[in-house]
Amino acid sequence: MSEQLQNAIDYSNKNQEKFLDQLVSLCKIPSISTDPEAKPAMQQTAQWVADKLTSIGIENVRVMPTAGHPVVYGDHLHAGPDAPTILVYGHYDVQPADPLELWHSPPFEPTLRDGNLYARGASDMKGQTLAGIFAVESILSQGDLPINIKFMIEGEEEIGSPSLGDFIQTNADLLSCDLALNPDGGILGADKPSIPYALRGLAYFEIRVQGPAGDLHSGMFGGVVLNPANELARLVAGMHDENGHITLPGFYDSVLEMSEEERAELARLPMDEEYYYNLTGTPKLFGEKGFTPVEQVGARPTLDVNGFLSGFTGEGSKTVLPAKAMAKISMRLVANQDPAEVEKQLHQYLEENARPGIKWEIINHASAPPSITPIDSDGVKALAAGLEAVWGKKPLYYRVGGTIPVVGQMESILGVNSVLTGFGLPDDNLHAPNEKLTLAPWYMGIDALIHFFHNMEA
Amino acid sequence: MSEQLQNAIDYSNKNQEKFLDQLVSLCKIPSISTDPEAKPAMQQTAQWVADKLTSIGIENVRVMPTAGHPVVYGDHLHAGPDAPTILVYGHYDVQPADPLELWHSPPFEPTLRDGNLYARGASDMKGQTLAGIFAVESILSQGDLPINIKFMIEGEEEIGSPSLGDFIQTNADLLSCDLALNPDGGILGADKPSIPYALRGLAYFEIRVQGPAGDLHSGMFGGVVLNPANELARLVAGMHDENGHITLPGFYDSVLEMSEEERAELARLPMDEEYYYNLTGTPKLFGEKGFTPVEQVGARPTLDVNGFLSGFTGEGSKTVLPAKAMAKISMRLVANQDPAEVEKQLHQYLEENARPGIKWEIINHASAPPSITPIDSDGVKALAAGLEAVWGKKPLYYRVGGTIPVVGQMESILGVNSVLTGFGLPDDNLHAPNEKLTLAPWYMGIDALIHFFHNMEA
Repeated sequence: MSEQLQNAIDYSNKNQEKFLDQLVSLCKIPSISTDPEAKPAMQQTAQWVADKLTSIGIENVRVMPTAGHPVVYGDHLHAGPDAPTILVYGHYDVQPADPLELWHSPPFEPTLRDGNLYARGASDMKGQTLAGIFAVESILSQGDLPINIKFMIEGEEEIGSPSLGDFIQTNADLLSCDLALNPDGGILGADKPSIPYALRGLAYFEIRVQGPAGDLHSGMFGGVVLNPANELARLVAGMHDENGHITLPGFYDSVLEMSEEERAELARLPMDEEYYYNLTGTPKLFGEKGFTPVEQVGARPTLDVNGFLSGFTGEGSKTVLPAKAMAKISMRLVANQDPAEVEKQLHQYLEENARPGIKWEIINHASAPPSITPIDSDGVKALAAGLEAVWGKKPLYYRVGGTIPVVGQMESILGVNSVLTGFGLPDDNLHAPNEKLTLAPWYMGIDALIHFFHNMEA
Repeated sequence: MSEQLQNAIDYSNKNQEKFLDQLVSLCKIPSISTDPEAKPAMQQTAQWVADKLTSIGIENVRVMPTAGHPVVYGDHLHAGPDAPTILVYGHYDVQPADPLELWHSPPFEPTLRDGNLYARGASDMKGQTLAGIFAVESILSQGDLPINIKFMIEGEEEIGSPSLGDFIQTNADLLSCDLALNPDGGILGADKPSIPYALRGLAYFEIRVQGPAGDLHSGMFGGVVLNPANELARLVAGMHDENGHITLPGFYDSVLEMSEEERAELARLPMDEEYYYNLTGTPKLFGEKGFTPVEQVGARPTLDVNGFLSGFTGEGSKTVLPAKAMAKISMRLVANQDPAEVEKQLHQYLEENARPGIKWEIINHASAPPSITPIDSDGVKALAAGLEAVWGKKPLYYRVGGTIPVVGQMESILGVNSVLTGFGLPDDNLHAPNEKLTLAPWYMGIDALIHFFHNMEA
């Protein structure tokens, strides 16, 4: 370990109390992005972050307006053109705190109990945002940064980042970088350092079908018209074969298959069938044949009905033959599937399979590309080495079944991969009462990030 | 034609004005069975009918209480034990009249325009009920009836006859007969005398499926659980094959197939594909392969989704993997299918096809047996001869796709077939504003019923 690195680690370890004080201070501001009355608090929080960045030596710090809540920007670009530039993402907004009566201590009065700090936003993600800042502070306290760094801390993540796409687009030059670091992930356990290296994308559609011109009496006309609810059920059913494979034409053509090495890594994860039985309560696990549950959730695409509506759905019976039926279906996509391609495949499937007794249309409700930052990429290797240096063990690698839109936006607009990290635990009560941050792995995480930035120098 | 028959026809023709006056008088009473405030009007209407029966010489006339609105009973049993006993069914209640502003003349101020009497209940079925009474009046005015006759006129048909099953059960001896005449049908056109000789039955179920214990995030868990909406869609889709045949085990085993003669009769009906296109507005007719539309609607069973609900059905998108899904499905049944057997078949189908990733249950919402009174039965032959005598042409025979519960109750409790008739037209606006009765075919219908009763003597 270089002397500068060792000194930075020492700084971090000596300043844990100060770090905690500052986290407490940040968590006291109720920066609830969805609350219209929280606008002053949002501005105050953004300014707090900007001041903090300035105080540790970050330059060009700005609170930049958007159509919604502002983005805090700052950079430190002294490592020269050969050193990589890393964009550190974060968000300073938090979820609402209700129901307040379920909190054991007030959500905006951070309280320490049993090595955990209880406060709204402590884990998601004021703690994670500060972990990145404290890591940079620790290094800067001992000299220059070995890499170029930029910060982009937004205030709208908890409401779906409505302004961020435009912001990145407009400020693409300012934000240009070689890699993004996104600490909005977590680890699988306090003693389980881990790296989420892939996210699934999303393609969300509504299929509307119309049969007869209006609702019909099922006695007078049942038998001569194609019932749109029956037909939509048939079309939806036909989207899978009996092995759970999706039948849309060409659906798997661009799917990046896992290597044997990757499957071996995923097999190390502590998520067996029992794990999924406990979390879902399903009577019997079911997924695409030939893959383990962890692979089914992380590395394989899905097609799920999210909603289905037709005809009479009240109490009792009504003998209506409905004129219309609607299904919301969404596909979780994996690298290298493209939501626009999937829409074409759905269109083709309906063209080929829908019978002429109904008319159909597709409404595109949402889409997000999948992303993957390979295990053997420089960024993930640098983070893995950092985690191993601090935890003394090789990290676990896992894929996330859900979608983080900003990661896709970074890829599509800035053309960069994101390394995901974060030091929150699965039981942190994100978005729920009694959110907490467990301090021990958080302090370790700050050190791991110090290693990561140093490792990226190479 | 016998002299007595000729005299009865003459009586009928001479008294058309009086018949109309009495129909007007009956239609003035707003006997809306669903309206709690109409109770006095209901009682008044029942008494009107009872008085009318008494006035024409019907005996044992009674307004008999039920749990709901009363039933009017009366009989005339002087034709001796060898003559058949015919039970004439009718109902004196009517549908609500709203929206009132769409009526061209007030619903309970019967108004004559262009040979039609406009009033709520004129066609459905005060006019039809009186047609049967006037036919009997015409015969009795000339001497004795050639058959034994009983009247059962209920007051709850428009609310689903909730008290009638109990009433028939309790009074089975009083109501015992050889055949029922139910004039609650209609004819296909003023110049198209016609006999509906079969009704479809009904078996109405709700299938509820449950997958995971609660709604799940489709990103975190999509891929490892059987989605109950997808699975229910698959189960519903599997209930038909590609030719529109229903796949429930044994579903067609007891279906009474049509003879070639019957199919030839049905082929005479003026209901071609164009007819069904105009009435349904379907982009393309679809039904069980191998049958004409008229056969598909009248002589073949169906299985239709009446309602389907699962997950998120509001505007936009929500990436929920729903815990539950529900489908209301109903089968229209034909002779000799049994709703209880069909429930067992549905149960067996789900047992054999539902996968272990969901749990399911069936709720039985409604059932009614199908019925048929064969074209070559005495009752239908007597009615056909009566229609032909008056219209001068052979009647058309048709099957009704819907269900009239009282017909099934007569069959199951009293063990008798019903001959269906009635002289309303398809454009009578039943259950709608501006209900009307076209008088010319109604007067002809009274004569046809006079013939029918005489023909039944043989």
